[in-house]
Amino acid sequence: MADPGPDLSDAAFLADFAELSEIGVTAGGGVDREAATPADGRARDWLRAWFDDHGLHCRVDAVGNMYGCARTTGGGPEAPYVLVGSHLDSQPTSGRFDGAYGVLAGAYAVAAVLADPPGGARYNVAAVNWFNEEGSRFYPSLMGSAVFAGKLSADDALDSFGKDGVTVREALNAIGFHGADAAPQASCYAEIHIEQGRSLIDEGLDVGVVTKNWTAYKYTITVHGEQSHTGATHMRYRRDALVGASQVVLAVRAVAAEFGPDTVLGSVGRMTIEPNSPVVVPARVRLIADLRALRADDLEAAHQSLMARVAEIGNDGEVSVDIESAALRPSSSYQDSGIALAGAVADDLGLTWCELPTMAGHDSVNLKDVVPTVMLFVPSVDGISHNEREFTSDEQMLAGVHMLTATTRRMVAGALEAAPAT
Amino acid sequence: MADPGPDLSDAAFLADFAELSEIGVTAGGGVDREAATPADGRARDWLRAWFDDHGLHCRVDAVGNMYGCARTTGGGPEAPYVLVGSHLDSQPTSGRFDGAYGVLAGAYAVAAVLADPPGGARYNVAAVNWFNEEGSRFYPSLMGSAVFAGKLSADDALDSFGKDGVTVREALNAIGFHGADAAPQASCYAEIHIEQGRSLIDEGLDVGVVTKNWTAYKYTITVHGEQSHTGATHMRYRRDALVGASQVVLAVRAVAAEFGPDTVLGSVGRMTIEPNSPVVVPARVRLIADLRALRADDLEAAHQSLMARVAEIGNDGEVSVDIESAALRPSSSYQDSGIALAGAVADDLGLTWCELPTMAGHDSVNLKDVVPTVMLFVPSVDGISHNEREFTSDEQMLAGVHMLTATTRRMVAGALEAAPAT
Repeated sequence: MADPGPDLSDAAFLADFAELSEIGVTAGGGVDREAATPADGRARDWLRAWFDDHGLHCRVDAVGNMYGCARTTGGGPEAPYVLVGSHLDSQPTSGRFDGAYGVLAGAYAVAAVLADPPGGARYNVAAVNWFNEEGSRFYPSLMGSAVFAGKLSADDALDSFGKDGVTVREALNAIGFHGADAAPQASCYAEIHIEQGRSLIDEGLDVGVVTKNWTAYKYTITVHGEQSHTGATHMRYRRDALVGASQVVLAVRAVAAEFGPDTVLGSVGRMTIEPNSPVVVPARVRLIADLRALRADDLEAAHQSLMARVAEIGNDGEVSVDIESAALRPSSSYQDSGIALAGAVADDLGLTWCELPTMAGHDSVNLKDVVPTVMLFVPSVDGISHNEREFTSDEQMLAGVHMLTATTRRMVAGALEAAPAT
Repeated sequence: MADPGPDLSDAAFLADFAELSEIGVTAGGGVDREAATPADGRARDWLRAWFDDHGLHCRVDAVGNMYGCARTTGGGPEAPYVLVGSHLDSQPTSGRFDGAYGVLAGAYAVAAVLADPPGGARYNVAAVNWFNEEGSRFYPSLMGSAVFAGKLSADDALDSFGKDGVTVREALNAIGFHGADAAPQASCYAEIHIEQGRSLIDEGLDVGVVTKNWTAYKYTITVHGEQSHTGATHMRYRRDALVGASQVVLAVRAVAAEFGPDTVLGSVGRMTIEPNSPVVVPARVRLIADLRALRADDLEAAHQSLMARVAEIGNDGEVSVDIESAALRPSSSYQDSGIALAGAVADDLGLTWCELPTMAGHDSVNLKDVVPTVMLFVPSVDGISHNEREFTSDEQMLAGVHMLTATTRRMVAGALEAAPAT
């Protein structure tokens, strides 16, 4: 071609990644780009400009998912797409790799396939930035991909309130990303992400091919006590919701400890205390807790243990404890065809790899329930995650970009055709 | 006098109290008037208008203390004053009696003494509304009276940040109560308040005469962990600050339980969790805790026990625990002369009464360290406090107003003259 086309070199990728990492940068070298905040808006503006510069047509759907669409077939824009992406939003203080690496790698993969499509391309291809993967501002997490996969209605997502009292609809409007475009129809999906665990780094491998997700229970629990004066209420008259909530936190920890090492995970990440005033015995505490396991029967046993422990806290009589919701995210497998494809691509590229499950949730967990999906990991030093100190080397990132690009090209050529969801 | 003067009848008091209770009223029938919020501003505007209507000259000092001053002697406005008051600010959701009852009772007492001063009045007299008694928005509590008593500088108070990031100076300016008036010089002080305990209600008494305050330690404690992903971090790698904080909450409770009933109180009222996000292991938790006892040696033993328990939590190795501050509020006695005066007045009025200590802090705890001070309680049903369900009957309130008025008149006549602080 006479036109040399956009620069999709390794150096360009690293320069772009460095530029993107400056948006919402924190003092500790991480990023703070919670969903639909001004910083997330700037990262999205940056991505839209990147799409424009690289010949990808940007669509934004009602819940803020962004698609950088490329026509690689003779089919029209309504023809099915291979989607490739992740998320630009972050936890309040988080590393710069989580999500953003996968979005940029996806954009590079799509632009590379557009520049050099496989012979007999069967699908169009689009890079994706899913809205609110993290769930720190707007609950629940994996929101944009859940709407795409038909698990959550767009209206329910748009009406949900953030921790700051703003709705998703208001927040997306404020940053100009409450779109009106139709989402592209997906034929299949690929995502790359840092591992958020130590398997690859400990084994010295280049790439992980994800086989299934850990199963999880997510709980909303409210502990009810009675508000009184910390200085003037005798202990026997107190109904201290924070004492009850602390017992719940330690019960979650005790449940995880019941099982062998690395079998069950359990945490309380958020507690909302009312009125949370220095000399007032707390009236009410709401907790968001999770339990996770690879095996469904371990998780079910852990769930039963937690329910028994929580009932005991309520039975003590000082507080009452309501399990407001207990949502099960089941474990299910990524399609064998995708796992086989990724392994073959890694071998072709001379990359070392293994199969492994994902402990953390990803947008691909939603996508795999509706289309054949490939989920890839790159190593992350010490498995550090949701922390500014998250780190993946340039070489490790670039190996992942090459891997994702080659996988995407094969998917566009129809490698996963007609593979049913398992 | 030809002028009938203002209406200071029991009916007028109850009508005014009802009107004041509507400012910042909550759905549960309490009030939400945290210090220097718009609702506190409206209550203050209401009080200033009341002062004007009743011939009291309003002064506002730099930290927002309001004084409704009356000249009852031949001395000028610089002559010493008998101060009588309490606070209009409230906890975020609280009862309508805590503080506001004492301010209005003080205003009625001052207006009544102004209307009918004792023969040979030796002091001027002023009603007071102290700024930020509660300490829920701006820490610490008892702020305005601490500045008045010389325990805290006005600048330190004005520069302190609220939980919403606003300084006292900004908040007082916003409601128009960052004043420039000199505080009146105090000769002595009287305050009336609901008991916030069950002694009077259980014994069926009209009035309590406070002899001393419980002693208290107030702690700021920070638990340091490490931020990570709740879904992707194996338990053995976690340093969960919320687990450590929950252990501290239960340690405070355990310390209180070590002692006999009604001997030591202990609570954590506020916890600030970072980042407080559903799928993030908390990195840091700051707690505000208190321990209280009537006897100094009980408190010291409780303090030592808490320090040992907290050290043990840190020694476990998962988290580190910093005791950032441990501030002792010692127990000290109200002056005997004031206790004797109050008892004599109650007997004169035919009110039933007892002596008792105060478990809760009051502005009078600061005032008694600088001038002779009388602290009175009226009964409060079930001892409920810092709760919308707080309740004192009209008859109980009015008995207190009569008691405070007669006590104030005797103080203006010099009944506490030259009684040194003990």
